[in-house]
Amino acid sequence: MREFILVLTGGVGGAKLCLGLQRVLASDGLQIAVNTGDDFEHLGLRISPDIDTTVYTLSGMSNAELGWGRAGETWTFMDVLRTLGGATWFRLGDGDLALHVERTRRLQNGERLSEITADVAARWGLRTRIFPMSDDAVRTVVSTSDGEMEFQDYFVRHRCEPVISALRFEGAEQAHISPNLYAALLSPELSGIVIAPSNPYLSIDPILSLPQMRELVGARAVPCIAVTPIIGDAAVKGPTAKIMRELGIQPSPLGVVEHYGGLIDGFVLDSRDQLLAGKMDLHVEACDTLMSSLEDRERVANSALKLLGNIKSARRGNNPGR
Amino acid sequence: MREFILVLTGGVGGAKLCLGLQRVLASDGLQIAVNTGDDFEHLGLRISPDIDTTVYTLSGMSNAELGWGRAGETWTFMDVLRTLGGATWFRLGDGDLALHVERTRRLQNGERLSEITADVAARWGLRTRIFPMSDDAVRTVVSTSDGEMEFQDYFVRHRCEPVISALRFEGAEQAHISPNLYAALLSPELSGIVIAPSNPYLSIDPILSLPQMRELVGARAVPCIAVTPIIGDAAVKGPTAKIMRELGIQPSPLGVVEHYGGLIDGFVLDSRDQLLAGKMDLHVEACDTLMSSLEDRERVANSALKLLGNIKSARRGNNPGR
Repeated sequence: MREFILVLTGGVGGAKLCLGLQRVLASDGLQIAVNTGDDFEHLGLRISPDIDTTVYTLSGMSNAELGWGRAGETWTFMDVLRTLGGATWFRLGDGDLALHVERTRRLQNGERLSEITADVAARWGLRTRIFPMSDDAVRTVVSTSDGEMEFQDYFVRHRCEPVISALRFEGAEQAHISPNLYAALLSPELSGIVIAPSNPYLSIDPILSLPQMRELVGARAVPCIAVTPIIGDAAVKGPTAKIMRELGIQPSPLGVVEHYGGLIDGFVLDSRDQLLAGKMDLHVEACDTLMSSLEDRERVANSALKLLGNIKSARRGNNPGR
Repeated sequence: MREFILVLTGGVGGAKLCLGLQRVLASDGLQIAVNTGDDFEHLGLRISPDIDTTVYTLSGMSNAELGWGRAGETWTFMDVLRTLGGATWFRLGDGDLALHVERTRRLQNGERLSEITADVAARWGLRTRIFPMSDDAVRTVVSTSDGEMEFQDYFVRHRCEPVISALRFEGAEQAHISPNLYAALLSPELSGIVIAPSNPYLSIDPILSLPQMRELVGARAVPCIAVTPIIGDAAVKGPTAKIMRELGIQPSPLGVVEHYGGLIDGFVLDSRDQLLAGKMDLHVEACDTLMSSLEDRERVANSALKLLGNIKSARRGNNPGR
């Protein structure tokens, strides 16, 4: 029996913490449930951006220069597609395309996204289990000043520029969580849940919008913590602060803690915001949460693990009989 | 009103003659109906090898070193697909893939193959009209010593090694010829039909297997000629001679003439086989039919055009009133 941590994550920002955790945890010590609300059909292909980012990052294949996609990528497909008048607003590298084509083929063949993802991770030698939040279609739809739009439309084509008034996760109410996520949440070896520093609204809420997810995380015996995606009043990456403002929420770590409400027992705060710790009614651990280097990723991972440990110790202290 | 030649062709060998004709004919002087019996679904993509070869060749994009595919191609997709355990027996370059992905998307969107092909040719600046023989599915199925197999299975995966006992063209009886081919055959500007030096059994017979095709070519007012795919007892390229032997036919230009039967009025023979001309009961023109250089392609094209001209002159001679 080997304990493991379950991480709920979106794409790039969350994957950094996942890589840190993979590096400091023992083999098999990490399982990752990934947002699929951003998944979409493009050029007839099924694209799962957050799964791919997570897989590329944890397998050491990610493109450090671009901040997304594969290292050593070529772009011939895109160059020729342009001459054909095809849609080029979503950039697909030649190597990246292999994953989309093969996944699409296997899905059309009746395989589940979770099976395919597990197989890809195994073929690429990952020692961390990565699974989609669900094998069913859940699609993030954004209500904006320019009307409703699909996530990638908002995120990539419109570069997050339209003002958001609401978000919904189409299909979430009917979707089941993936078998691997279900098994992870019910496993006696699960030792803690970490919400990655991904965008709470765009990346984490789709996962939490699944009815089984709220129920099982709510009924958990283990601590659940979140790592801040906000430093001061700014997002470390992406449009988190902008969206908070548009939704009428003051961008601040306090807003994030409030957003996750009763779901989390602890919060990893940035050292720069340490003064806010007193205003938070939960366990707090502070560290420099900016993750540029591998050491940074390991530091934040260690802070998250320390916080989980502190919460467990505190519980043992409160319940000496257990 | 501008006269044009209609060519019936398969892939690489036929495309060489098409390029020669494009170079010696006036703009708009050439229209090409391409075999689609080799088309197949692979990795969830619709691939039309003979159309693609023709388009690449006539647009100057073809890969001279490989003898197929695009010049300046990269292979990252294939390299990554291999690591995913995907099917790599049919090699797809990164740039080539753009055509397959975009065509598949447009077909799924309800467009016809002939529309898509015309649009691709226009975008790539082709001045020759290229169309599929049919927008309906016709699939060449090969009966071999190893059982029945689909064309690409036989041709690429099994490298034409199994012994052929029969060929059939699934769907041909129900298939309509493409609108462009129909218009070409009925056009008053059509001045002649040329059967390219493609494999008669694998590349030309699928076209001739379409009921409308036999009917309209049979009822034509203009001459129809073929260019030999055989020199001596060997094919210039590919398995033509091997297949003839397996089907119990002596590999020879005479066998090809006999195969096309009453359909052709003339035959371009290789100079090396000039002695056979006397045994052929049709108009014959001899030239060196090996096409290595651009000049070779133009020479064979000019021989084909000369033969068409000779047949017309002879007819005028026989019917002085016209």
